[in-house]
Amino acid sequence: MKISEIRVETFRYTSDKGKDIQGHGHPAEPHEAQQAMLTIVSDEGVCGYSFREDITMAMGLVRPLLLGEDPFYRERIWQNLYQRQREGSALTDRVLDAIDQALWDLAGRALDQPVYRLLGAFRDKVPAYGSTMCGDDLDGGLNTPQAYGDFALQLVARGYKAIKLHTWSTPMPGAPDPKRDIAACAAVREAVGPDIVLMLDPFHYYTRQEALYLGRELEKLDYYWMEEPMDEASVSSYIWLTEQLDLQICGPETAKGGLKTRAEWIVRNAADISRVGTGDVGGITPMMKIVHLAEAFGVQCESHGSSIGNLHALCAMGIAGQFHERGLLHPFTDYETPPPWLNALPDPMDDEGFVPAPQGPGLGLDINFDYIRDNLVSG
Amino acid sequence: MKISEIRVETFRYTSDKGKDIQGHGHPAEPHEAQQAMLTIVSDEGVCGYSFREDITMAMGLVRPLLLGEDPFYRERIWQNLYQRQREGSALTDRVLDAIDQALWDLAGRALDQPVYRLLGAFRDKVPAYGSTMCGDDLDGGLNTPQAYGDFALQLVARGYKAIKLHTWSTPMPGAPDPKRDIAACAAVREAVGPDIVLMLDPFHYYTRQEALYLGRELEKLDYYWMEEPMDEASVSSYIWLTEQLDLQICGPETAKGGLKTRAEWIVRNAADISRVGTGDVGGITPMMKIVHLAEAFGVQCESHGSSIGNLHALCAMGIAGQFHERGLLHPFTDYETPPPWLNALPDPMDDEGFVPAPQGPGLGLDINFDYIRDNLVSG
Repeated sequence: MKISEIRVETFRYTSDKGKDIQGHGHPAEPHEAQQAMLTIVSDEGVCGYSFREDITMAMGLVRPLLLGEDPFYRERIWQNLYQRQREGSALTDRVLDAIDQALWDLAGRALDQPVYRLLGAFRDKVPAYGSTMCGDDLDGGLNTPQAYGDFALQLVARGYKAIKLHTWSTPMPGAPDPKRDIAACAAVREAVGPDIVLMLDPFHYYTRQEALYLGRELEKLDYYWMEEPMDEASVSSYIWLTEQLDLQICGPETAKGGLKTRAEWIVRNAADISRVGTGDVGGITPMMKIVHLAEAFGVQCESHGSSIGNLHALCAMGIAGQFHERGLLHPFTDYETPPPWLNALPDPMDDEGFVPAPQGPGLGLDINFDYIRDNLVSG
Repeated sequence: MKISEIRVETFRYTSDKGKDIQGHGHPAEPHEAQQAMLTIVSDEGVCGYSFREDITMAMGLVRPLLLGEDPFYRERIWQNLYQRQREGSALTDRVLDAIDQALWDLAGRALDQPVYRLLGAFRDKVPAYGSTMCGDDLDGGLNTPQAYGDFALQLVARGYKAIKLHTWSTPMPGAPDPKRDIAACAAVREAVGPDIVLMLDPFHYYTRQEALYLGRELEKLDYYWMEEPMDEASVSSYIWLTEQLDLQICGPETAKGGLKTRAEWIVRNAADISRVGTGDVGGITPMMKIVHLAEAFGVQCESHGSSIGNLHALCAMGIAGQFHERGLLHPFTDYETPPPWLNALPDPMDDEGFVPAPQGPGLGLDINFDYIRDNLVSG
């Protein structure tokens, strides 16, 4: 089997989310946005699909490395792409993620199996946590500590047994402020009681002392983990923090270097829990390697982000990452309705807080090809 | 899909190999020996197969953990078996290997794909090295340094570009003897010239000083690696040796603890090259985890032994283990004829010294079911 064609189709949809100048998502007035579908076509007619914001720019680099390759040679393709990343380019980890997920999708569709079973399955469903958007200044949004408490109650009513707060970051007024972060964390604990698992992802550029303050307060509030309170480029800061705290530190998340960076963080005790998402490291293939690395050192490994690839990896992890991240969630937005290019939600959650392993072939996305065709951005 | 039945069928064949009291293989007069075929049967009629010397004793432990399981839940099955190993029992790593390989075989047969493609392939063929039997006292065998030199020439004529010597161990007369080992290594280098890659696997219970002597002499002879010259239970001895030598130390091989032991060896710099075979760690599933661990630390990872599972793993390794081990070889025995329970050799080698990726479904073994049925040992 050979890869005969690679297509990127960019299409329009109406979004009710926007990004602030730091890249954090918030509710927004409905507006036109774009999404891209990557299609990897084989000469035997089987295709694999994945979705990303625009990856067109990288295709000039990607095509020569993929066309004519056997799509089942995922490891060779990934290593070739990875080596081509060295000089910096449009070939980001997110592009590698889109390609790797599309190749897994193609394999699963060719063999009529969901990806998590091809990987060698471990479980049928994964507990989810509700992951809030970052704090904002919207009335009825996430604008006060009490607003977080109120929203947390809604999430518990929906079935979540675990919740992660993203609190206020710049450019929100008054941010960053460790005391307000803790006030929100305390309001949530007060609202949901002792039995809901809680985590915090705050502003990412706190000092060591600010991060230590957060950690000590979260210990009193019985939080489960904190992630990325400081710049992850300073591994020494994370070693220092992890040594001080009983609270678990979870990371790295945005630090570059994928598998090898996670190896360094583990052997240097820079975090208690390792972290990986397909988008951070370039796909399901490297994500599984990081899971195996974590297993080698008896370290818990948690998934970052809501990608369908993460969900398959979670269902195939022998040392189980505990949670699928579901979100980002906000009182003004609806996570339970699929986006218009999908006919069904990739990660539906039952009333007990579990997301089932996707059962369709490949990644299991139920794609609305008509919608995409009808909304193409002309090239 | 569910596992509905697990069969172990033990059958007779005529062997021309025997084992000495330390477990090392040598040529022997033809005699009756036994082999076992493990069959994992699914309720959809697809079966997976693997071969081992007798594993019947473990089946009482295995059956309750496998029957009724989905055979694609390889990770869950492996973790359950692994945890059951803790108290020591008939459930050895070799039993886990037989089960894991049979499950991969089943998946590949169900999906009509060779295992290395399910894993995400990296290459189509692997260079082999010829791996000799241990030294002996047989005229015309491997009884003198010159005999090794003569045999090495035969291996080069066959197409091998790399050769590994197993020299003399107890209970052979005069063994162990580091000087005689080096004389054999020198005779081989003298015979084959500078362009053949050479490795040594000597007696496994040398002292640190004896191992250092071997290493220094192998450096002069431009050997590529040495493996297991000392008891692998002493990790500190390997750290000490690896620090002294430029010659690469390859290991661990027989040390228990699988993935986690390899992690410790890597971070403690107890070897230059990590080592794994399916039989040492319990299957293809943990072997791939160790490959991923090695990649995380930029460490080369070499395969141990000739199992068909190793060959699939080698074809899927992104940081390529350099060689498939072919053997064990001896002037008196024939490696090029398949055993009677197979219709074709699992790892045929071309004249350039390459073994192709197996292309049949699953593990790709071409099993002679008639032979097995006709030679069953009655239960």
